[in-house]
Amino acid sequence: MEIESAAQEKSGVFAWLKALPGKAKDKIVNVGKSIKKLGKDDPRRVIHSLKVGLALTLVSLFYYLKPLYDGFGMSGMWAVLTVVVVFEFSVGATLGKGINRACATLSAAALGVGSLHLSSLFGKEGEPIVLGFLVFLLAAAATFTRFFPKIKARYDYGVIIFILTFSMISISGYRVDSLLEMAHQRLSTILIGGATCIFISIFVCPVWAGQDLHNFIASNIEKLANYLEGFGGEYFQVTEDKDSGGDSKKDKSFLQGYKSVLNSKTTEEALANFAKWEPGHGRFLFRHPWKQYLKIGALVRQCAYQIEALNSHLTSDMQTPPEFTRVIQESCINMSSESGKALKSLSSAIKSMKHPNSATQRVENSKTAVNDLKAALEAAAIEDSDLLAIISAATVASTLFEIVECVEKISESVHELSQMAHFKKVEATVSPEKPQMLLHRGTVKPVLDSDSDHVTITIHGTASDSLEKENPQAPKPREEV
Amino acid sequence: MEIESAAQEKSGVFAWLKALPGKAKDKIVNVGKSIKKLGKDDPRRVIHSLKVGLALTLVSLFYYLKPLYDGFGMSGMWAVLTVVVVFEFSVGATLGKGINRACATLSAAALGVGSLHLSSLFGKEGEPIVLGFLVFLLAAAATFTRFFPKIKARYDYGVIIFILTFSMISISGYRVDSLLEMAHQRLSTILIGGATCIFISIFVCPVWAGQDLHNFIASNIEKLANYLEGFGGEYFQVTEDKDSGGDSKKDKSFLQGYKSVLNSKTTEEALANFAKWEPGHGRFLFRHPWKQYLKIGALVRQCAYQIEALNSHLTSDMQTPPEFTRVIQESCINMSSESGKALKSLSSAIKSMKHPNSATQRVENSKTAVNDLKAALEAAAIEDSDLLAIISAATVASTLFEIVECVEKISESVHELSQMAHFKKVEATVSPEKPQMLLHRGTVKPVLDSDSDHVTITIHGTASDSLEKENPQAPKPREEV
Repeated sequence: MEIESAAQEKSGVFAWLKALPGKAKDKIVNVGKSIKKLGKDDPRRVIHSLKVGLALTLVSLFYYLKPLYDGFGMSGMWAVLTVVVVFEFSVGATLGKGINRACATLSAAALGVGSLHLSSLFGKEGEPIVLGFLVFLLAAAATFTRFFPKIKARYDYGVIIFILTFSMISISGYRVDSLLEMAHQRLSTILIGGATCIFISIFVCPVWAGQDLHNFIASNIEKLANYLEGFGGEYFQVTEDKDSGGDSKKDKSFLQGYKSVLNSKTTEEALANFAKWEPGHGRFLFRHPWKQYLKIGALVRQCAYQIEALNSHLTSDMQTPPEFTRVIQESCINMSSESGKALKSLSSAIKSMKHPNSATQRVENSKTAVNDLKAALEAAAIEDSDLLAIISAATVASTLFEIVECVEKISESVHELSQMAHFKKVEATVSPEKPQMLLHRGTVKPVLDSDSDHVTITIHGTASDSLEKENPQAPKPREEV
Repeated sequence: MEIESAAQEKSGVFAWLKALPGKAKDKIVNVGKSIKKLGKDDPRRVIHSLKVGLALTLVSLFYYLKPLYDGFGMSGMWAVLTVVVVFEFSVGATLGKGINRACATLSAAALGVGSLHLSSLFGKEGEPIVLGFLVFLLAAAATFTRFFPKIKARYDYGVIIFILTFSMISISGYRVDSLLEMAHQRLSTILIGGATCIFISIFVCPVWAGQDLHNFIASNIEKLANYLEGFGGEYFQVTEDKDSGGDSKKDKSFLQGYKSVLNSKTTEEALANFAKWEPGHGRFLFRHPWKQYLKIGALVRQCAYQIEALNSHLTSDMQTPPEFTRVIQESCINMSSESGKALKSLSSAIKSMKHPNSATQRVENSKTAVNDLKAALEAAAIEDSDLLAIISAATVASTLFEIVECVEKISESVHELSQMAHFKKVEATVSPEKPQMLLHRGTVKPVLDSDSDHVTITIHGTASDSLEKENPQAPKPREEV
């Protein structure tokens, strides 16, 4: 037995060794795949990499072209350093870093020269002490400012460069006159490096953070829209599937999309910060209301939290009595799909920068569905049935109320944006699906045909007052069935 | 009239001018206040600023002490640069940057020397072309790797420094022999700068990212606990206040704390990344299970999303019928406060690194409350009352079910953590408040004494089976009242 197990072990080791080249190959193939995926997901990444290579190669000209080399000397190195550190993915980030670097270098250089002059007044022995004290003081004070959230967000890099330049100049121990020459050289190379970055970043396949923010918000809204459009069918079908024992495993990727919205805050804030540095580009003017995007983003996240709460009921095992389902099903599906459609048209309005007219109608439709359901619930009384069975479905309905409210707020804030950013006005068109929605609503049937005797539903005349005003052709729910 | 308005305008301008020094003073006072607040909120910020000043002043010695100056020459500047760029708030971040910088500089220097050697084989004319091509290739490839999320999270700075060093060496055009000397100088100054940072960061009032992550998770759990402990009273009292027209404006800051948990993901991930760089410190060994904190964090956020959904019902205007309130009130308050207490003891178990025994009992209590409420709901039937009025309260109950589930998961994951990180075992003590809770439960009174005739509540014997098993002394609910 022992020999056998030893032999097994040995063959196991051999098998492992044999598999090693295969494993290495697998690993390489996997890395290759993920590189390909990364590039495919956003081809601008590949382009950005090539742009950085290009900028560095261009700057290296300073070293190879003899006249420039003589002019700038070793300072040309600063051009390389500037390119590597300043070149970022988006124009806004690059500009922000470049401007931060330029301003910080200039102001720190001026202060550094000043402090050298000041310390020279204290004689040979006092000089290092005064300089050391000044460096300590300014470095500590500047480091502390980095804790201010506003400075952290926009000027963090500038403060670092300020400390760096000031310390270097103060500590260098040069006399002021030779220092000025050096400062001139260094500044001009930094400017050349920065200008190269900014030029390439703006004119070679530019990536605008503003455009990215704009698309990011629109696509987040669309993700919620996809969820809401699909939710109604999914929720009630799941219930039906369970009843009929059917298979409910389908492609449900649209039910997962909203999850990324939950943690979108950091990305949005970073993009908005970068966008503020950018000049006007394409359809975005210089003072585009980037702040409004953050407001919309916060509301969208709010809605995503509600959807997260809703989502936990999709997998609920609780069986809703079919009588109660029948009361709420149509209205719930309408609330969900109409607010989904409202979000979808808000999203496409943002994308095309057109006035979000069509969304208004959708929001109204979803509010009508809310009122319908409220009226139906007000009118319905359940006898002898346990509340536990309906609580999950009731929560879905109640969460949908919240979502409709949220969507209305999102719609309002997108309207504000469209005002601020002068979106194109389009002719208001009556949504073609409105009557259909209302007809749907008409099919909320009372439970006469149910064979269950647990539930009695009473629908009062108040159920659809609002509906009648809007569409007199809509079938009236029967009273006191 | 015109003269009067002109006079008014003039006096307005004067008043504005007069107010100007006051306004400037106000502004200065405000800035001073926010500085004070920033320092008070976390005094480690002030200490960190002083530490950076200290490190820079220490490094400046390289310039002032003659022998060192002669030894390192202008390269001493690199020590300053290293300190400014590498010194971060926490030990982990500083170590991570320092190690990244050292490894990247070494590997890039080796590659740079290699590529200089390679290109020299191509003759005077071919050399710049080959070098330019190599710089382009490596810069583009390295930039692309920065898009990998894993590399971005841990090695981003290293990649930047790699590109920087490689370009500088390749472009510098030095011969290899003089380059080696320069590289030696630069490396040693960088090492001195980095070592100064790491030494000061570890030995002068260290800020451990791991400790911060530990506390952050514990305090987030506590924030949710505060909310849940207060929610029950708040929700039902608000309803009562409305009935009696009383004033419900109290200090509700504990109801806002959870909001910061919603967006905690980025902070947690950053801290966990830093923590992985840190050596063992205090009660944290080297391979402390930082990943588990992220798992707990995700569950805590999940719970916060549910609380967000719950929170929208606190301000709901809907009047819950008192009969229904009476059915759910006690169980809801119990679910909420017991899961709040469970979270609180989990939080304090994490803080003190003791085994979270007492939480288990709390979780059990909250689950008992869930079962009680479920049984009560199953048994209660509501006649002639509208469903709309109870839907908000029902949603609160249903969301509390989800929260209890969430809290159980959090408790499990904290138990896993306590296993992994070898938390101290403590003697299990029976929670003193358990009987009290159960007595509370006993006060869920049926509606016999109600003067309303809208609601009949039926409580079957099944209502508290589980309760009877646990505590035979607990008062039995009357059957079929």
